[in-house]
Amino acid sequence: MINVLFAATAERWTDYEAPLRAAFAARDLAVDLRTEFAPEEVDYIVYAPNSPLQDFTPYTRCKAVLNLWAGVEAIVGNETLTQPLARMVDHGLSRGMVEWVTGHVLRHHLHIDHFLAHQDGDWDGARMIPPLAEERPVTMLGLGELGSACAQALAGLGFPVTGWSRSQKDIPGITCLSGDAGLDEALSTAQILILLLPLTPETTDLLDARRLAQLPRGAVVINPGRGPMIVDQDLVAALDSGQLRHATLDVFRTEPLPAEHPFWSHPKVTVCPHIASETRPRTAAEVVAENVSRGEAGEPLKFLVDRARGY
Amino acid sequence: MINVLFAATAERWTDYEAPLRAAFAARDLAVDLRTEFAPEEVDYIVYAPNSPLQDFTPYTRCKAVLNLWAGVEAIVGNETLTQPLARMVDHGLSRGMVEWVTGHVLRHHLHIDHFLAHQDGDWDGARMIPPLAEERPVTMLGLGELGSACAQALAGLGFPVTGWSRSQKDIPGITCLSGDAGLDEALSTAQILILLLPLTPETTDLLDARRLAQLPRGAVVINPGRGPMIVDQDLVAALDSGQLRHATLDVFRTEPLPAEHPFWSHPKVTVCPHIASETRPRTAAEVVAENVSRGEAGEPLKFLVDRARGY
Repeated sequence: MINVLFAATAERWTDYEAPLRAAFAARDLAVDLRTEFAPEEVDYIVYAPNSPLQDFTPYTRCKAVLNLWAGVEAIVGNETLTQPLARMVDHGLSRGMVEWVTGHVLRHHLHIDHFLAHQDGDWDGARMIPPLAEERPVTMLGLGELGSACAQALAGLGFPVTGWSRSQKDIPGITCLSGDAGLDEALSTAQILILLLPLTPETTDLLDARRLAQLPRGAVVINPGRGPMIVDQDLVAALDSGQLRHATLDVFRTEPLPAEHPFWSHPKVTVCPHIASETRPRTAAEVVAENVSRGEAGEPLKFLVDRARGY
Repeated sequence: MINVLFAATAERWTDYEAPLRAAFAARDLAVDLRTEFAPEEVDYIVYAPNSPLQDFTPYTRCKAVLNLWAGVEAIVGNETLTQPLARMVDHGLSRGMVEWVTGHVLRHHLHIDHFLAHQDGDWDGARMIPPLAEERPVTMLGLGELGSACAQALAGLGFPVTGWSRSQKDIPGITCLSGDAGLDEALSTAQILILLLPLTPETTDLLDARRLAQLPRGAVVINPGRGPMIVDQDLVAALDSGQLRHATLDVFRTEPLPAEHPFWSHPKVTVCPHIASETRPRTAAEVVAENVSRGEAGEPLKFLVDRARGY
């Protein structure tokens, strides 16, 4: 019997218990899945943010911690975690992110908000023709699983896409840049900028007043990645000065975003309540079951986190 | 010298004169391009809606009429027109339509209007998770140049796309249907319905109360095609009853849409002022020049209209 501890909140247990049991059964894995075990009996831990489990020291037999989310910043710095850590790379998560990013890029490209605001009977007043996508350079910061999938979808629609990542990538149809000079260049052409970098000490506060000033005037910022990459007050200042046309934000330094935060009422900010992409229980459970199966077979786990890089 | 009469309005002349001269020059065509000629001296006519030219009888030497728009319903029924008629199939027109259709399909798929309406500080009240595109069947009525390009872009994003056309088509990745029974089936699954059929007697009033009732409850209608395909009062009734969730309309029976028309103020209707796709002067001028070149070489013209079918 393989003992799998589900160490996320009770709400997640409601969503995940049945899909996990089904996914283990589909792989003929004899799993005892529970929310409580004696620590020394646990073989695998399924983990998510806000878990009460913070001290991994007593889990002496545990072969791996399997994160239910793509982002691992809530756990990767935990010094008691000596077990291998795998993050989630879920088909549903990736497809959902591609749809959300493409939808909001097209929303800003086509000025859809302008048309929604002009429903007052004034035909000529509403009229405006956007350029073609091929005349609208877009920059993606981050070319991991999610960033590269989004970049390729946007390139497929005709946008000239520049991608930037810490290590140099090579993706067909995307102008791939890296390093500090590459970042300067990637920002300088970005009429629409999308943030899909992992949250690390290097990416925290990345988009500050200096970096925002590198964008072309009237640029749009879309952040479905992590909130602390943006310096909130610098973003508001850039919107107020006209340096930025709009910011569409799905993630924030504090979530839920407090009701009194200026983003909520700013006319050039769209707040989304962290819905750009959800891990989908059915598809995510299949990833967890595959990794348990690999662990039992002595095969390398998929989506292992490099603790030194932080993702 | 080839005499080309530009028979559109003065406003169009402003937009098109320079691109047309450049396109003729690029092909080494010795063209005399003017807005006035003695009719019997004209070799080609460049045409657009609202032209003062309505009687083609005196243009006895004219080898072809080259329409600047994709739709030809303003001219195809003109009984004095005995010359070959070519419509516009413009790279810019096609790309612009793909972008507009994809943007509005994603807008409705992702419920972007919902998020734009929930900027009041209530995080949980704003929260909603749409299904994945793969769970959102879309139907395209019309699989011509524009319809098939849009259908393929949507399929590329993961939507299950059904296409319907008068004559049976075969497009990879699209479920292609035709005929009356095919239309019943195409409508029955359409969570999002897009109208890109040519306007003919058969497609006029196509979307009436009976056809709207065939859609799944809560469907969205997007019309970037031609206004008279929809029976306006039946559409409003379907929106009011909840049969339809929303209608995004770019074309209307009367354009500009009169300020007193109920579409403007209806909360479930988005009016766009016929901007879904514009013929772009640069790319369209190249198509006109190519057809003049073909005509002079005795080659068949591109995009000839079948007068019997009406498109």
